[in-house]
Amino acid sequence: MINVILSGCNGKMGKVISNAVKDGGTVKIVAGFDINTEKNFDYPVFDDFDKITVPANVVIDFSHPANLEKVLCYCTKNNVSAVIATTGFDGAQTEKIFDAAKKIPVFYTANMSIGVNLITALARQAARVLQGNFDIEIIEKHHNQKIDAPSGTALMIADEIKKELDETPEYVYDRHSVRKKRDKNEIGLHSVRGGNIVGEHTVIFAGNDEVVEITHKAASKEIFALGSIKAAKFLSGKSAGLYNMQDIMNM
Amino acid sequence: MINVILSGCNGKMGKVISNAVKDGGTVKIVAGFDINTEKNFDYPVFDDFDKITVPANVVIDFSHPANLEKVLCYCTKNNVSAVIATTGFDGAQTEKIFDAAKKIPVFYTANMSIGVNLITALARQAARVLQGNFDIEIIEKHHNQKIDAPSGTALMIADEIKKELDETPEYVYDRHSVRKKRDKNEIGLHSVRGGNIVGEHTVIFAGNDEVVEITHKAASKEIFALGSIKAAKFLSGKSAGLYNMQDIMNM
Amino acid sequence: MINVILSGCNGKMGKVISNAVKDGGTVKIVAGFDINTEKNFDYPVFDDFDKITVPANVVIDFSHPANLEKVLCYCTKNNVSAVIATTGFDGAQTEKIFDAAKKIPVFYTANMSIGVNLITALARQAARVLQGNFDIEIIEKHHNQKIDAPSGTALMIADEIKKELDETPEYVYDRHSVRKKRDKNEIGLHSVRGGNIVGEHTVIFAGNDEVVEITHKAASKEIFALGSIKAAKFLSGKSAGLYNMQDIMNM
Amino acid sequence: MINVILSGCNGKMGKVISNAVKDGGTVKIVAGFDINTEKNFDYPVFDDFDKITVPANVVIDFSHPANLEKVLCYCTKNNVSAVIATTGFDGAQTEKIFDAAKKIPVFYTANMSIGVNLITALARQAARVLQGNFDIEIIEKHHNQKIDAPSGTALMIADEIKKELDETPEYVYDRHSVRKKRDKNEIGLHSVRGGNIVGEHTVIFAGNDEVVEITHKAASKEIFALGSIKAAKFLSGKSAGLYNMQDIMNM
Repeated sequence: MINVILSGCNGKMGKVISNAVKDGGTVKIVAGFDINTEKNFDYPVFDDFDKITVPANVVIDFSHPANLEKVLCYCTKNNVSAVIATTGFDGAQTEKIFDAAKKIPVFYTANMSIGVNLITALARQAARVLQGNFDIEIIEKHHNQKIDAPSGTALMIADEIKKELDETPEYVYDRHSVRKKRDKNEIGLHSVRGGNIVGEHTVIFAGNDEVVEITHKAASKEIFALGSIKAAKFLSGKSAGLYNMQDIMNM
Repeated sequence: MINVILSGCNGKMGKVISNAVKDGGTVKIVAGFDINTEKNFDYPVFDDFDKITVPANVVIDFSHPANLEKVLCYCTKNNVSAVIATTGFDGAQTEKIFDAAKKIPVFYTANMSIGVNLITALARQAARVLQGNFDIEIIEKHHNQKIDAPSGTALMIADEIKKELDETPEYVYDRHSVRKKRDKNEIGLHSVRGGNIVGEHTVIFAGNDEVVEITHKAASKEIFALGSIKAAKFLSGKSAGLYNMQDIMNM
Repeated sequence: MINVILSGCNGKMGKVISNAVKDGGTVKIVAGFDINTEKNFDYPVFDDFDKITVPANVVIDFSHPANLEKVLCYCTKNNVSAVIATTGFDGAQTEKIFDAAKKIPVFYTANMSIGVNLITALARQAARVLQGNFDIEIIEKHHNQKIDAPSGTALMIADEIKKELDETPEYVYDRHSVRKKRDKNEIGLHSVRGGNIVGEHTVIFAGNDEVVEITHKAASKEIFALGSIKAAKFLSGKSAGLYNMQDIMNM
Repeated sequence: MINVILSGCNGKMGKVISNAVKDGGTVKIVAGFDINTEKNFDYPVFDDFDKITVPANVVIDFSHPANLEKVLCYCTKNNVSAVIATTGFDGAQTEKIFDAAKKIPVFYTANMSIGVNLITALARQAARVLQGNFDIEIIEKHHNQKIDAPSGTALMIADEIKKELDETPEYVYDRHSVRKKRDKNEIGLHSVRGGNIVGEHTVIFAGNDEVVEITHKAASKEIFALGSIKAAKFLSGKSAGLYNMQDIMNM
């Protein structure tokens, strides 16, 4: 059994994780951490890591960048693994994550979905094989309430593809204002917004008389919860170090 | 049998049309008009409409805006129908087409493909039914040599949709530079460029928990040739007037 | 304000409808009918229509075919409109629905989603225009727990398309066991099953060098709830008669 | 410069290859072999390998299984590499290819398209990562004249995926005749037939709230010609052995 302390347990993702594991399995939440200490599930909730005395194997953190220090401090002091699923850290905070990984197993990724990480890895390989003869474009679709464009995931995919390309690509967001042919080293990024689409990413490789497309469609944010649980299981028995989805996928 | 004079017979589309009808059927090319009078098929080619003496039912014009006057003059004088498949006319020229249509049957459309005209009509109906609750976005994909964006067809579809909307839509080409939610009356237009894609248009209606998509994919420019042949057949027996693909589709 | 009696209020769809209208608007649930009389929302729940004394404009029925008689009896007696969203009626029951529609406004459809009804109407039109030159295929995708294939909606779409075709089509489900070319009058029906896909239907019209596709994707069953609410609003002020989504869409 | 003897030079694919290299580059056809000795390009055509005296680096064979012995005999005797792009060999013939590869570099693959081989490799990796939690389905689309279903390529993809799966999958072609839930170890194979679609393959991995799709679309058979030219270049400087697209892609 993997005993989990869930940081941010009363937030949206915290509740999704709590529901996902409540029907048994190898993962059990033994304590929650949250500013709001309402008890919504069958584990105790604390507003301070110092108050948590129940032994645990791993902390899953889906809370807020402001809690990072407390989480890492607790984990390193008690030799507990950490799955950092919170996003929005600054450079100094990222350094702290790297430092903690020297003492304990730390799982840290920009996107907790297995599927998104998989298509990123596949797109990177496709780019390596097809570059020079195929043009690369990315279409992402999200709900009409999203304020950033392109999505962070679309940029992550483009940045990963970039690592495989011999020539540095130029990201292009708008072609309507110019009258010119596509440059070979462009990567077009298109942000469709509409309805309550959860998230869809397609990488297009268009060549001479053939097109390769790699797509990921998310139907709910629950996939991020499942990814973090998978990460918690993965860390079990690992030695200190920094891990991410590539390690889980063994790609 | 419908006897056709093919204007622009030695151009790219002229040759496609000639090949499409050479194996018999109800359409026969009896003469060609082209500046280049090379004889590539079994009909005579002239560089002047005055030299054409063989009787015909219809002229299919796939040549150049500069030839419009000659084509219309020939047709009205000889009481021959006209399928105007050339594009790029200015306002004065368009007026001349409308004038001719008072004397003879004239078929004139911005896009000669049945499929494109069909999805335009379907998208317009979808917009009428779904407006208010669904967001509309258009993605078009073309080869990397195309210099204009969005495609004329994508704009035509958007303009037709606009006619059904209670609120005037705003066409949006780039969302990456602004950080704001989608406005209800936006129509997003996305121009994917890559490889030698002939042409693909998708209209997306994204609502709450459901999405409707209408797509047209062209695999060659031959579909425009087939459309013009269909138009020539359609004009047979019609009285003077202006006709387009909506009339053929009876929508 | 449209006052609704919700039949089947404690079922899955009943709860979705209750949630959808609880935040105000022009529709208000004034009473519920269910065998299970648990009170989950702010309206009273009865296990018998005779006990309902609060005046209402319309009954939305999302319960069970066995309740049909009670629903129609209540409606005709009290001159209340009926939205019949239950499915699985036999022929005799359908007759009763038709009979009731002679006395009161009745809304009855095989599928309560606006989007599904829209693409069915669009596919029918496309079939009318393209038949003879295009081959028609339908792909539907659903979750891995669905036991019937093809989906009722896919069959409904095929049956509607059939009404437009000059030649009676043959529905084809499996091509792997035969070695022969496609017949012109086939409609291929393909049932993809996987994960927890809610429901996706694509109608493909494949012609010479061009393809038209019409797709509907559902992300939740809530769209059926919204459709029934829309239907309830639509019936307001209507005279006796049988109505369906085509009437709402005015297509 | 890589000097090529083109076997089957007057066949459909032979002509496509001849056109593809005629505008210069590092590949030059120095002689053709064909039963039909018509001279369509600027290289001599022979009906017997014994008559070919011009030195060459590689034979590209796009002819007929019946010619295999002649091709391999010529290559091994003259120490010339062989790109075997013909399909339809029996077991004994395949053995002969393997034997020849002990003496000379031989390139042999079931599908000459880089894109198809790439998505096969990507689908295999996806299957390895996602198995157990995702259902796998394959949709292939081809023209209405194709007599076999599913396509050889769809089966090749399924067979490659199979190699990664812990449980042996069952290929399922028809779900309409049974009323049961999908088994976990099914791979659904769907053959869409319509118009003149050249070839499209999509592998779907459908999981809980997320779907991964990998698609290849071919717009012409030219991609197989380009693949064989790429293979010819690849063999240059290689030692004896059996090579395929995985080696070119370095995957």
